[in-house]
Amino acid sequence: MMGTAPFSAFIDIPSMLVVCGGSVAAGLICFPLGSMIGSPKVMLKTILNKSEDKLALIKQLVALAETARRDGLLTLESKIADIQNPLVKTGIQMAVDGSTPEVVEQVLRTEADALAARHREGKAIMDQMGRFSPAYGMIGTLLGLIMMLADMSDPSKLGAGMAVALITTLYGAIMANVFFCPFAEKLGLMSRAELTSIEIAIRGVMAIQSGESPRAIEQKLRTFLPPKLRNAE
Amino acid sequence: MMGTAPFSAFIDIPSMLVVCGGSVAAGLICFPLGSMIGSPKVMLKTILNKSEDKLALIKQLVALAETARRDGLLTLESKIADIQNPLVKTGIQMAVDGSTPEVVEQVLRTEADALAARHREGKAIMDQMGRFSPAYGMIGTLLGLIMMLADMSDPSKLGAGMAVALITTLYGAIMANVFFCPFAEKLGLMSRAELTSIEIAIRGVMAIQSGESPRAIEQKLRTFLPPKLRNAE
Amino acid sequence: MMGTAPFSAFIDIPSMLVVCGGSVAAGLICFPLGSMIGSPKVMLKTILNKSEDKLALIKQLVALAETARRDGLLTLESKIADIQNPLVKTGIQMAVDGSTPEVVEQVLRTEADALAARHREGKAIMDQMGRFSPAYGMIGTLLGLIMMLADMSDPSKLGAGMAVALITTLYGAIMANVFFCPFAEKLGLMSRAELTSIEIAIRGVMAIQSGESPRAIEQKLRTFLPPKLRNAE
Amino acid sequence: MMGTAPFSAFIDIPSMLVVCGGSVAAGLICFPLGSMIGSPKVMLKTILNKSEDKLALIKQLVALAETARRDGLLTLESKIADIQNPLVKTGIQMAVDGSTPEVVEQVLRTEADALAARHREGKAIMDQMGRFSPAYGMIGTLLGLIMMLADMSDPSKLGAGMAVALITTLYGAIMANVFFCPFAEKLGLMSRAELTSIEIAIRGVMAIQSGESPRAIEQKLRTFLPPKLRNAE
Amino acid sequence: MMGTAPFSAFIDIPSMLVVCGGSVAAGLICFPLGSMIGSPKVMLKTILNKSEDKLALIKQLVALAETARRDGLLTLESKIADIQNPLVKTGIQMAVDGSTPEVVEQVLRTEADALAARHREGKAIMDQMGRFSPAYGMIGTLLGLIMMLADMSDPSKLGAGMAVALITTLYGAIMANVFFCPFAEKLGLMSRAELTSIEIAIRGVMAIQSGESPRAIEQKLRTFLPPKLRNAE
Repeated sequence: MMGTAPFSAFIDIPSMLVVCGGSVAAGLICFPLGSMIGSPKVMLKTILNKSEDKLALIKQLVALAETARRDGLLTLESKIADIQNPLVKTGIQMAVDGSTPEVVEQVLRTEADALAARHREGKAIMDQMGRFSPAYGMIGTLLGLIMMLADMSDPSKLGAGMAVALITTLYGAIMANVFFCPFAEKLGLMSRAELTSIEIAIRGVMAIQSGESPRAIEQKLRTFLPPKLRNAE
Repeated sequence: MMGTAPFSAFIDIPSMLVVCGGSVAAGLICFPLGSMIGSPKVMLKTILNKSEDKLALIKQLVALAETARRDGLLTLESKIADIQNPLVKTGIQMAVDGSTPEVVEQVLRTEADALAARHREGKAIMDQMGRFSPAYGMIGTLLGLIMMLADMSDPSKLGAGMAVALITTLYGAIMANVFFCPFAEKLGLMSRAELTSIEIAIRGVMAIQSGESPRAIEQKLRTFLPPKLRNAE
Repeated sequence: MMGTAPFSAFIDIPSMLVVCGGSVAAGLICFPLGSMIGSPKVMLKTILNKSEDKLALIKQLVALAETARRDGLLTLESKIADIQNPLVKTGIQMAVDGSTPEVVEQVLRTEADALAARHREGKAIMDQMGRFSPAYGMIGTLLGLIMMLADMSDPSKLGAGMAVALITTLYGAIMANVFFCPFAEKLGLMSRAELTSIEIAIRGVMAIQSGESPRAIEQKLRTFLPPKLRNAE
Repeated sequence: MMGTAPFSAFIDIPSMLVVCGGSVAAGLICFPLGSMIGSPKVMLKTILNKSEDKLALIKQLVALAETARRDGLLTLESKIADIQNPLVKTGIQMAVDGSTPEVVEQVLRTEADALAARHREGKAIMDQMGRFSPAYGMIGTLLGLIMMLADMSDPSKLGAGMAVALITTLYGAIMANVFFCPFAEKLGLMSRAELTSIEIAIRGVMAIQSGESPRAIEQKLRTFLPPKLRNAE
Repeated sequence: MMGTAPFSAFIDIPSMLVVCGGSVAAGLICFPLGSMIGSPKVMLKTILNKSEDKLALIKQLVALAETARRDGLLTLESKIADIQNPLVKTGIQMAVDGSTPEVVEQVLRTEADALAARHREGKAIMDQMGRFSPAYGMIGTLLGLIMMLADMSDPSKLGAGMAVALITTLYGAIMANVFFCPFAEKLGLMSRAELTSIEIAIRGVMAIQSGESPRAIEQKLRTFLPPKLRNAE
């Protein structure tokens, strides 16, 4: 690349409208309006999100188990406000309220599924948009080429017309490869990483409710950690 | 895109015939005539359809359970006409008619499978049409190019010939990315969303037939709801 | 498309040889000679085939069950010649011959698997041919382009040479999208549709052999039908 | 195609080196050296191989069962040399040596898995090479185009340069569609076909060791055959 | 290819920045920074790695079993330093420390899962980079083409501009097909090959802890080996 063309050569408002408008319109046919509007928020969250600290989660569960053992399950009520993890929060609340272990587990699993479904939808939106944007880029280029070829009265404008026609392909490729595809992949990785946290949370809550000893709970939950973290203080 | 070509530059009847005719013909080889004719209706339904209100479904099941508990299963006969959900309707009708729980469950599952198969076929038609239309667009462009190149007596018509040849590619890309692909994706999402409703309906009917208490049924079915809806009145 | 080129512009025997010959040769490496020779027969059958009448199949099974109940299993021997469905035929023959239910079921399942494997192979042939024909179309175009470019002594023939080179791509695209891909899809749909018939036939034969009442058999088998057909006379 | 270019127009040694060398080098990164060297042998075997005669295999197993029944399991030792099928050979040898049925079955299953893994690796090599060869064809064409475009001092050589640049794409397409892809498909089909033979061999050996009657063994194994062969003498 | 262009025709620093920079940036959105930085190390390890010697692993497990049988499980403590395989090391250490078999097995399985997850992440990075690099190559070529076409004041520079524009496509294709794709495939093959070693290690440790006889352990573990190695000394 050695061109000296000004940056403005890459800006073309109608092209942008075709690619962005087309992709968003196609996305709106596929997905509910609410999910589409929420997807930039999902992208932002993806960038900022740190994967949860599993060791801290286990420590909190063990601390809860100690309190429950010492002072009874009902004393956990005062601690619920301090719990970050939504699954642990719901589970402890239900245990305190006297739900049976079966109901607690089913509710937690349903909640975990709902969470997973939300991640899956986010990924599906990114995936689809990553497929639509290059397609609308190509549609825009075809529109531009046909217009240009249909009216070749001034051959000297051929190059410029071609350049403008190619801009939509460029926009589509950039949108797909800079935004949608990487974020789709990221969301997929993140939801797989969260599965372990979810499993730790559910097993921890079940163990607390069944009154297992804090030491046994800790040993059991730490087997979910990778070797390096297992014996960490 | 900066062309000043009139809109008519994008209209070419023979091209339309090649792309639409070809795609529909290929679709007719794949799918039964009836399914193909029904597919625009499916697309329309997809746009208008709201996903079923699961909370209302649970409330109706609980109300039916209360009536059945208080006045006996047979009194449900008078309420069947008010039931919207076809699975619940069939299930209650069979329960009133005295079918065994095993037969009721198998019939409901078969009906749910038939429903899912109908959605899957709709999605398969959209998917295939979304694959055939760009292919026939390319076939049309090749036809146009060969005709143009075989007869280049007047080079000044080259541009116009090329423009017309490209129109079929444009048609194919638009048909695929504006109609078929988004609707295929939408149908796929919708049938996944319906799985929960189906599960709630079947479990609810089975619980009513086995005479469980309305409160227990409600608690059990609400675990299928996402957290926000679970405690709603 | 506005060309006035004669139809002969689209006929080129060497191109046809490259695309058809190449695809068939590649197909012969993949699949046994017998399966390749049989594949046009499979395509013909696909067009003519109507999916089996499941209701008639159930009625026949119920009629057989009534005869078996009234006059004993052995009297079914005289009816075997009237049975269309090959699985039912084999199963009743074996039951009459005194095979144990386990052997009858295993033989029927193996036969059903062999049938499914035959459909799968037909689909695999169509799928592969649908992948090879555009590839050999491209190979032919590359051959044509290289020949044309290597010898450009007469530039006025450039257009005609290009047209001829593109013909193989056109042939490949037409073969794939008019023949192979639609038939592959059709065969896939058809074998899924047959699974229910196979299940009805096997369950019916097993029920007849175990001497269940005709009414119970009918009720059980009808649960496999879609709702509309279930209560049909 | 109507070119009169000599065949030599399609021969270009550097192009061949780029495509073949590149594909093989990429293959060597993916697969162990030994597997790559063995892959032409695998391709040869694929062409010559006839699928095993399952009927003969069953007959041999029944004959072995008869001998074992009549003269005791140990007399099979003298027959081991005549057995072709490696699984049957290993199994009978182990049974004669007094291994327990559990160990015999586990060894046979491991051996069958190793065989399947060998086929899978052969298919994986073909698949990868079928993906790398068009890619290196494209890389070669890009190299050629860039060289040609960077030095356009003599425009009359443009056509010839383009022709040479396209040759690598042609080589890549031919290698993929004439060699690698068809053989990959063939290997996939062959290993699926062998699964039945393996199952027959393992079940047969287990039945011989447990001393089942030859007639029962034959009946059981024949259920694995397609209908036409089942009652063959 | 017959060009006489100097090698420098293939070097263009801005193009390299677009392709490498773009791919790495997209990769960093998908994967944690640490994993991306570690991926060259993974590639290096892949080249150098020899697959583990399973026979030696079994011999070591048998030797450990003999010691444990003769002198008690606790005497294994002195041998732990000599063990190479990390799973065996962890397992024996835990057995010596008195963990219950259930805990030992769960910890070993978690560790094996963590190992597999690390391999899967390495493969995912290679796969993604192999998808991003040609995409950024295309984006670079589009940028170059648009710049060139927008400013065609000097037609004699067209060829050179085109050559430079194509360089990014070349870079992307080379990066994908020389580096990322082959290594992705290699990592996939390697992790499948390691599954057997992992299974041998876990089963061996469990058998040692439960005090099985060394001969029985050896026989059991050798069934995991391919036939050729099974009876090797």
